[in-house]
Amino acid sequence: MTQVEVIEAVLGGNDEVAAQLRERFDAAGVRTLDIIGSPGSGKTALLEATLPALPSALRVGVLVGDLATRRDADRIARVASQVVQINTAGGCHLEAHHVEKGLAALDLAALDLLVIENVGNLICPVGWDLGQHAKVGVFSVAEGDDKPGKHPPLVLAADALVLTKSDLLPYVPFDRAFFEQDIRQMNPSVPILEVSALKGDLAPWLTWLEAFVAG
Amino acid sequence: MTQVEVIEAVLGGNDEVAAQLRERFDAAGVRTLDIIGSPGSGKTALLEATLPALPSALRVGVLVGDLATRRDADRIARVASQVVQINTAGGCHLEAHHVEKGLAALDLAALDLLVIENVGNLICPVGWDLGQHAKVGVFSVAEGDDKPGKHPPLVLAADALVLTKSDLLPYVPFDRAFFEQDIRQMNPSVPILEVSALKGDLAPWLTWLEAFVAG
Repeated sequence: MTQVEVIEAVLGGNDEVAAQLRERFDAAGVRTLDIIGSPGSGKTALLEATLPALPSALRVGVLVGDLATRRDADRIARVASQVVQINTAGGCHLEAHHVEKGLAALDLAALDLLVIENVGNLICPVGWDLGQHAKVGVFSVAEGDDKPGKHPPLVLAADALVLTKSDLLPYVPFDRAFFEQDIRQMNPSVPILEVSALKGDLAPWLTWLEAFVAG
Repeated sequence: MTQVEVIEAVLGGNDEVAAQLRERFDAAGVRTLDIIGSPGSGKTALLEATLPALPSALRVGVLVGDLATRRDADRIARVASQVVQINTAGGCHLEAHHVEKGLAALDLAALDLLVIENVGNLICPVGWDLGQHAKVGVFSVAEGDDKPGKHPPLVLAADALVLTKSDLLPYVPFDRAFFEQDIRQMNPSVPILEVSALKGDLAPWLTWLEAFVAG
């Protein structure tokens, strides 16, 4: 009984902070994304390619979560006006209080879009509300076509799924129909957006993202 | 205070069960590996290629952890005499009690090597003792050369690191020297074993594994 009470208290705290964050985002007119995917699924590379391809008037900030190093923030700083690296010191996901701390170093009034690149992990980040308006799941073709079927919580929670590294399709075993079939059994309507950040092929994702920012 | 006590009790329980498991493995003469890597790093493909390449007298059992599906166990059943799929129902790592339950379906006396393929996750499984004799970390070249630097706990804990999907090296940005440099700063002596399961290039890993089984 004690254990359940403690867990509920922790989750309650997160959801309260997340609700306050969402109010702040809405008041500032900032649309906010939580991007979730495995380590090496290409989340940072996707942002590096995406940000310069967006309309130049769009002001984008990025919060990047990692266990260690500031490398992702350094990469993204070249293409975003505001970036904050959050090191979780071993933690496997971001929580709302991490985002709250990160916002202290951001000027929300000078942003239209805030992207939260979560810690590389297909499992743990899914259940945590960060005050975002949408969750985006990222799978790379190099991970294999069976990853959605083995990770139902993310597929069920995602507002969009990005399939990255399509340039590797000729070199890896990957059955696109099998990949989609697993997703459709769980989430019949989620957009599946195939991209190659390396080649700059981002069209379906950019279309989705611009519509998302427009609200 | 209550929260800390609850967590300590849970961890204490795990380490006790893990110690009992290690005693059982030792009594049965079974060497045991815990394999940890991201979703899609190629853990299952590595086992599919490895098991048929081992000396035929070597009897290998596999415990496979996943959030959902029995697909990995079905794949490995073609090459291993004994396989058990453990579904964690959303859990992000295996714990000693999962392994204990899995052993109920295995005949330890008929095994020389037990491989535990952990849930695909570079973070959460690292700290949990499963009674294994060694931990093997898996990184794929498709994940990028920066993953060891961003995941110190696994690099520090690993007895061996396998670099998979070397067949993709011509097609992905990956600096082998950078990858190794990060590892060496944390773990100067851990073997780094480059393989391609797709091409059957497994030599350094097979050599390490056979020496490990020999004790």
